[in-house]
Amino acid sequence: MTQSSDAARQYSRANGDKFQQQLFDMLRIPSLSGDPAHAGDVRRMADWLAAHMRELGLAKVQVMETAGHPVVYAEWLGAGPDKPTVLVYGHYDVVPAALEDGWETNPFEPVVKDGRTRTRGATDDKGQLFIHVKALESYLKTGGKAPANVKFLIEGEEEVSSPNLKPFIEKHLDLLKANVCVVSDTSMPKIDEPSITHSLRGMTYIEIEVEGPKDDLHSGLWGGAAHNPALALVEILGKLYNPDNTRAVPGFYDDVVALKPEERAMIAKTDISEAQYKETTGVPALWGDKNYTIRERLSARPTLDINGMWSGWTGPGPKTIIPAKAGAKLSSRLVANQDPHKIYDLLKKHIEAIAPNTVKVEVSLLTTGMPALIPFDIPEMQAAAHAYERGWGHTPVFTRGGGSIPVVADIGDLLKIPVVMMGYGLDSDGLHSPNESYSIDMFYRGIETAIVYLEELAQMPRQKHVGNR
Amino acid sequence: MTQSSDAARQYSRANGDKFQQQLFDMLRIPSLSGDPAHAGDVRRMADWLAAHMRELGLAKVQVMETAGHPVVYAEWLGAGPDKPTVLVYGHYDVVPAALEDGWETNPFEPVVKDGRTRTRGATDDKGQLFIHVKALESYLKTGGKAPANVKFLIEGEEEVSSPNLKPFIEKHLDLLKANVCVVSDTSMPKIDEPSITHSLRGMTYIEIEVEGPKDDLHSGLWGGAAHNPALALVEILGKLYNPDNTRAVPGFYDDVVALKPEERAMIAKTDISEAQYKETTGVPALWGDKNYTIRERLSARPTLDINGMWSGWTGPGPKTIIPAKAGAKLSSRLVANQDPHKIYDLLKKHIEAIAPNTVKVEVSLLTTGMPALIPFDIPEMQAAAHAYERGWGHTPVFTRGGGSIPVVADIGDLLKIPVVMMGYGLDSDGLHSPNESYSIDMFYRGIETAIVYLEELAQMPRQKHVGNR
Repeated sequence: MTQSSDAARQYSRANGDKFQQQLFDMLRIPSLSGDPAHAGDVRRMADWLAAHMRELGLAKVQVMETAGHPVVYAEWLGAGPDKPTVLVYGHYDVVPAALEDGWETNPFEPVVKDGRTRTRGATDDKGQLFIHVKALESYLKTGGKAPANVKFLIEGEEEVSSPNLKPFIEKHLDLLKANVCVVSDTSMPKIDEPSITHSLRGMTYIEIEVEGPKDDLHSGLWGGAAHNPALALVEILGKLYNPDNTRAVPGFYDDVVALKPEERAMIAKTDISEAQYKETTGVPALWGDKNYTIRERLSARPTLDINGMWSGWTGPGPKTIIPAKAGAKLSSRLVANQDPHKIYDLLKKHIEAIAPNTVKVEVSLLTTGMPALIPFDIPEMQAAAHAYERGWGHTPVFTRGGGSIPVVADIGDLLKIPVVMMGYGLDSDGLHSPNESYSIDMFYRGIETAIVYLEELAQMPRQKHVGNR
Repeated sequence: MTQSSDAARQYSRANGDKFQQQLFDMLRIPSLSGDPAHAGDVRRMADWLAAHMRELGLAKVQVMETAGHPVVYAEWLGAGPDKPTVLVYGHYDVVPAALEDGWETNPFEPVVKDGRTRTRGATDDKGQLFIHVKALESYLKTGGKAPANVKFLIEGEEEVSSPNLKPFIEKHLDLLKANVCVVSDTSMPKIDEPSITHSLRGMTYIEIEVEGPKDDLHSGLWGGAAHNPALALVEILGKLYNPDNTRAVPGFYDDVVALKPEERAMIAKTDISEAQYKETTGVPALWGDKNYTIRERLSARPTLDINGMWSGWTGPGPKTIIPAKAGAKLSSRLVANQDPHKIYDLLKKHIEAIAPNTVKVEVSLLTTGMPALIPFDIPEMQAAAHAYERGWGHTPVFTRGGGSIPVVADIGDLLKIPVVMMGYGLDSDGLHSPNESYSIDMFYRGIETAIVYLEELAQMPRQKHVGNR
């Protein structure tokens, strides 16, 4: 459209290989935020990003401390005060990955196969956050100037539900002031079906620990009169679900905002078939609340999943013990207007009520995240739609996301700005799974779309800037 | 009584320290039969035992191959063909042990605390089998002659349910020919309450594996429409039990021999109180089938315990996945006349019948063992009772054991001889648990009782020798 974005797009195409190699450098750092053993790697990742953005000439580049892993901040305000400012949010941390989980190659050594970069964090979220860094670089290295101002807020604790980001934002409201926040941490079903996510699920993540005997017991000497903690856990977990696959926790659904017919119609546009779900996931048959379509279950309804479960002997061969303990990790994906802390209280109260007196049961909270629901008729959302049309080549649809990016609700609340979720991933990227990968084509198209989005934002009618509302 | 046993007992007392140091050498070898990584240690343990028995002057000492871990055989037939021959069965293998399971000290470095040797295998079964080696040595080093002939059959796979012992016995019926088999691998409640175990529970040990999606799924993207394999496992396991804590597997109790009033009266002699059970195990409250006393539940009724359970993420922090798989190890302690293979078929059939079509469920058999029930009025049993009176200093009671020593049933069936279970352990030894230990006093008393038992056997009326029946 203008010369400025054309030159930047040109530059991004010419430098695609270099961009990819730089992304590989990021991906080689195993920045697992949930594992204390990788705290040094997380720090190394933050330092790498800061150094990279400093090299590109960004201002105020800082690795900023929190009570947990640091935030990387950087800004470029060269467009001037009469232009909008976009706050790019992303996260440089990743979930665990190990060869024995089923990875075909080292999860922290990028390999390219069928046009996809396979590494932990490739799509979630290193590959996606880097798109915005490269989009800004493409302007700075051509005209020396981007059409809008850009601030980067890149955190290192998204995969452990961002426990320190809300206090960080509260402390730095001035520094983070912007007109719109853009988040690229979501995905589309196919490369020609881009979507702008306007809602996300929240989360309540708990751990249950059941204790029976003080030590593992010989099942022959003691078996028959001790309540096996694994069995007690099984009984408790079983009582969290109804036979129709809804959750049997009193009050669980009380605050769920019912879907309106027009919302169901919009969700239906992106519904997936049973065959598609089965093919992508490999499950033999579908499950869930039959009163809702598949896409509704995946995005507009709350869940409660067992994420992990353990007890006793899990090594090779038999071991005839009554385990001393059993435990489980459970998380509930929440929808508007469920409150994560209220849901935790309901879960804890219910579990404690059904716990038998033959064992000790403890319920603890690991993390929470608020659900988010953002209107899609505002200019910042419409600008994003235009950016996809021009940069990506396809008109996007507005969708609900099933995942949780707790910061989306927090940014909206604290900075009073809309959050636009422009996801550049594919549903089949396998984030959080073995062999997570990211399409190189998606990466390049994402950069061009991000370039155009800055231009579209700058062209919004001034009176519609949220910063001026 | 005779000079011979007096001298042997004297020798055993004088050499107590030496015997203990030799036992420590055995205990330092981590002979874990269930873990392929320790196959070399298992072999080393067999070689150590063989070398030790060769040094004592035993004949035909051999480390004999099986399809799995080897059997150690040795004999001393110097009492002559007109004297009875006792076959001592024991096992030199142990179950796993690791510091992180709650051991206060290295589980394979013996330490003595409060008069107890703490090490994996101290009571189960190295400390107990070694009693018979030292009893024979005490005769050989004094009069040069024991009153009865002795054969040793020491296996290395008891803790994995002796998969190769039955074929071994079948192949070596002549070599193993004896009048009675003595097994020391059981325990008594207190040091002044010795018992002769006349029944043991059998075992069916299975593994259940549940498979859902082909890889772990992101619970946000896919949660709500996939049956979580951990939940499916929970549902299956829950359906194996009735609300009254009996097993809900059709046919499970069909072959159980009902307890006669006189049997219940005998079992009542060794019943333990709820307070005792709670104190020893640390459970907050008791559990089980309320139609039976605690001791009946522990020895005369079948069980079904979850020995291990696993799914998904069990490391630190949260991980928001729907696990691809979940699994559990379960074992059932069986009583006469339950058949382990029939019980496996019933379990498999029931689990397959209740398995939902939303996941794939596989049931496999790990090991089996026959239950055993031996009459207690035969001379070999009565000789054992006399031996306890003289060697131990207390009159024993005949009890039922809750554990499983599958070979007891096999030896009885194949060699057509009675199996006398003279347990020298204490119920509180913590076998299979962290900090397993063995009383040094029990070890010494055991040696004297084993010395006297050889004499008692030799004095049995000849016509009552089983070998002559």
